[in-house]
Amino acid sequence: VKMADCDGEGAQSPLQLYERLTAQGETVRGLKTAKAEKSEIESAVQFLLKLKLEYKQVTGQDYKAGCPPPENLVLHDNGPTAEGATDEDEVNPWSVSTTNAKGVDYDKLIVRFGSNKVDKDLVDRIEKVSGQQPHRFLRRGIFFSHRDMHQVLDAYEKHKSFYLYTGRGPSSQAMHVGHLIPFIFTKWLQDVFDIPLVVQLTDDEKYLWKDLSVEECHRFAVENAKDIIACGFDVNKTFIFSDLDYMGSSPEFYRNVVRIQKHVTFNQVKGIFGFTDSDCIGKISFPAIQAAPSFSNSFPNIFGDRKDIQCLIPCAIDQDPYFRMTRDVAPRIGYPKPALLHSTFFPALQGAQTKMSASDANSSIFLTDTPKQIKNKINKHAFSGGKDTVEEHRQFGGNADVDVSFMYLTFFLEDDEQLEKIRQDYTSGALLTGELKKILIETLQPMITTHQERRKQVTDETVKQFMTPRPLNFHF
Amino acid sequence: VKMADCDGEGAQSPLQLYERLTAQGETVRGLKTAKAEKSEIESAVQFLLKLKLEYKQVTGQDYKAGCPPPENLVLHDNGPTAEGATDEDEVNPWSVSTTNAKGVDYDKLIVRFGSNKVDKDLVDRIEKVSGQQPHRFLRRGIFFSHRDMHQVLDAYEKHKSFYLYTGRGPSSQAMHVGHLIPFIFTKWLQDVFDIPLVVQLTDDEKYLWKDLSVEECHRFAVENAKDIIACGFDVNKTFIFSDLDYMGSSPEFYRNVVRIQKHVTFNQVKGIFGFTDSDCIGKISFPAIQAAPSFSNSFPNIFGDRKDIQCLIPCAIDQDPYFRMTRDVAPRIGYPKPALLHSTFFPALQGAQTKMSASDANSSIFLTDTPKQIKNKINKHAFSGGKDTVEEHRQFGGNADVDVSFMYLTFFLEDDEQLEKIRQDYTSGALLTGELKKILIETLQPMITTHQERRKQVTDETVKQFMTPRPLNFHF
Repeated sequence: VKMADCDGEGAQSPLQLYERLTAQGETVRGLKTAKAEKSEIESAVQFLLKLKLEYKQVTGQDYKAGCPPPENLVLHDNGPTAEGATDEDEVNPWSVSTTNAKGVDYDKLIVRFGSNKVDKDLVDRIEKVSGQQPHRFLRRGIFFSHRDMHQVLDAYEKHKSFYLYTGRGPSSQAMHVGHLIPFIFTKWLQDVFDIPLVVQLTDDEKYLWKDLSVEECHRFAVENAKDIIACGFDVNKTFIFSDLDYMGSSPEFYRNVVRIQKHVTFNQVKGIFGFTDSDCIGKISFPAIQAAPSFSNSFPNIFGDRKDIQCLIPCAIDQDPYFRMTRDVAPRIGYPKPALLHSTFFPALQGAQTKMSASDANSSIFLTDTPKQIKNKINKHAFSGGKDTVEEHRQFGGNADVDVSFMYLTFFLEDDEQLEKIRQDYTSGALLTGELKKILIETLQPMITTHQERRKQVTDETVKQFMTPRPLNFHF
Repeated sequence: VKMADCDGEGAQSPLQLYERLTAQGETVRGLKTAKAEKSEIESAVQFLLKLKLEYKQVTGQDYKAGCPPPENLVLHDNGPTAEGATDEDEVNPWSVSTTNAKGVDYDKLIVRFGSNKVDKDLVDRIEKVSGQQPHRFLRRGIFFSHRDMHQVLDAYEKHKSFYLYTGRGPSSQAMHVGHLIPFIFTKWLQDVFDIPLVVQLTDDEKYLWKDLSVEECHRFAVENAKDIIACGFDVNKTFIFSDLDYMGSSPEFYRNVVRIQKHVTFNQVKGIFGFTDSDCIGKISFPAIQAAPSFSNSFPNIFGDRKDIQCLIPCAIDQDPYFRMTRDVAPRIGYPKPALLHSTFFPALQGAQTKMSASDANSSIFLTDTPKQIKNKINKHAFSGGKDTVEEHRQFGGNADVDVSFMYLTFFLEDDEQLEKIRQDYTSGALLTGELKKILIETLQPMITTHQERRKQVTDETVKQFMTPRPLNFHF
């Protein structure tokens, strides 16, 4: 499945282009009808114009709505499309890829998605409002993009609270360290702002997308919940739910799902997510289920019938399409738009070009890995920015920008000065690849061991507590 | 919204025809992949060939998948399409129409839908198995079509039970006598076979299709439940549910909805229901919600985890598209196909060409009408098959086949001999239109008054009992 906003998968047939153009045209009309935000409309129009140009370059004729291109059209060989197609990254909920070893170009993504950069002003303001040093993920640009964070902080300063919503698609029992990023950050947000958190486990989504049974997906959800709980969330402030359970436990949640489903057309999800007529109706309607937790009255146990508590969603940037759709629908059904904080992707051991895969054991460090496995994986698989020989490395230095061990340290090493020293030493050649890897190994081993110990203490009873719809320790 | 299986709405553009052909091709492939019943595949192929012929007649060229017709194609004027289009009735869940004063041609519908006629053999067999005189709706061909009734009776004779599922879309508070048909018949089936009944109120559907709020639709569901309960159902054998409530109360129900949604594509619902890309994703996925009650494990309170209890669905024939889809999906998710008994439509007072409308107070007798209103409506609006003057009527006789008062009597007058005498007398001219109307008035007035008295006795507490998920008096 591929999002219309990106075109990283190479040259497309004129008919495919025609269909994407038609869908994008519908998206623009939909945004205008819905009186969406100016920036959202503009970025959609920009993309429409880009597609029109591409269509003309490929087919030699102007795009005209209702007129698909002739089937046997002679294509312009080696036209600008074939070349142009590779210079943008693909980022959508099911696929992330780039040809750049440094990873996705996040500044371009901000322009394309129409979001805002987490700049120094915002980080300083979070520090001021929360009274805490900003989390390393903020200090280091790992949560690099946002929507409406200033609005959330304005309200918070006026003693108007908000709540956090994040989630995970439980596609297997195995979670890797990258999966912890949103949860580590969300826990920090919850601690400094003292607000409720809801965590959605989209086991229904995984059933729809993968070759798994309903029962398997639900079991993965419960297993994943244990790893999430092990991040240290407070049971009095946190509600974790499986869609397969909660949809069938909360009439209010389903009412919001139906409200959203009434206000999103197939044309819209086609434009946003790239669904086709051959997709099952479950996939087509699923985005409404990921949208629903953005509205406070989906959780009457926590918020009563209040529908005006704003939601802040920390998530990886690939989930943004869901919430662009949600923000489009919100005002039309009388709810506030959720605010967002977007993170970069956690790189695979093999390099930053691709997102990690839970199905490839060597693509990341798993939360179940032993100290020995961690050591071996990093030594064997972590892509190095070092030189081929010690001599060359000492002479020319390594490239920290493409070195996966260094990237992992930016995620997990707390001390800013130590990190900066490592970067300088590695770049100068004073620090060798093996030494850099050793620092990472010694950072991750105790972290994973601690996680495993905490996870062991998570009993079935604890999971049940977290996953039971109930009031939290807040009054709304 | 229009079903692909019928073409009563007049000439279509070549592109519309092309799209229907493409969708129908997908439907046929889907049925074959799913190893659907031979009869279902054959009827789908037949319709595909018919569309191909039509396409060639209109465009002058053969249909070719992937090649939409040129936009400025010169149409063949007055071709067979324009003429042929009006000789079939339109029958789908949202629209029923015919140009024939006797009503829809039900024999043709059986062929088109690929169902079976309720013939004398089946009626005799129901009498034998149940040990009861068949209901007048069976004796008079009002429930005229079925799927798999013999299979249900075979199993019942071997002491294998089944359950009943019927429903209603609560689009307003006002129900008319026609709305009672499935409930009167279902109550009879429940009485003679002594089996559980589930009644679905699709308040979510009405929210998606109509300009109504979630709250209004739910209120209509509760109000309609009172009229349904007033038909005399046994609270120990009957579960009535609003989708908006039950979807949020039963994880098992939602699990089945998702299972169905995974196995139906947009192409399929486009082919079956005529959905378009401009339809909201709620409509597109709704058919799965109407399908789910066909499977016994959607009701764990009643059936435990048994998924093999067969379902029998008494409903008007316009609901069949939902259950053709359901029967297509069932074997692929390991469930038995539901059996069906289809009724004809209850005619509007103005004539059998159209289905009644709950929004037109004069189109039928409402369950809230006073005796005086009943009398006035019938005298003023009931379409008469009589002659213009008493003299002509006496000389040539009336036409019972198009006379709405006589049609209503076939639904509500229990005595077969009396009904036949009325038909003969009216046809001979011995019975005048005013006299026929008087018989209908005197039949309906006490029936409606009794209904109103019973409805008054239905307290909020009673409704709550019926609508609470709970075990019924059966052991599975």
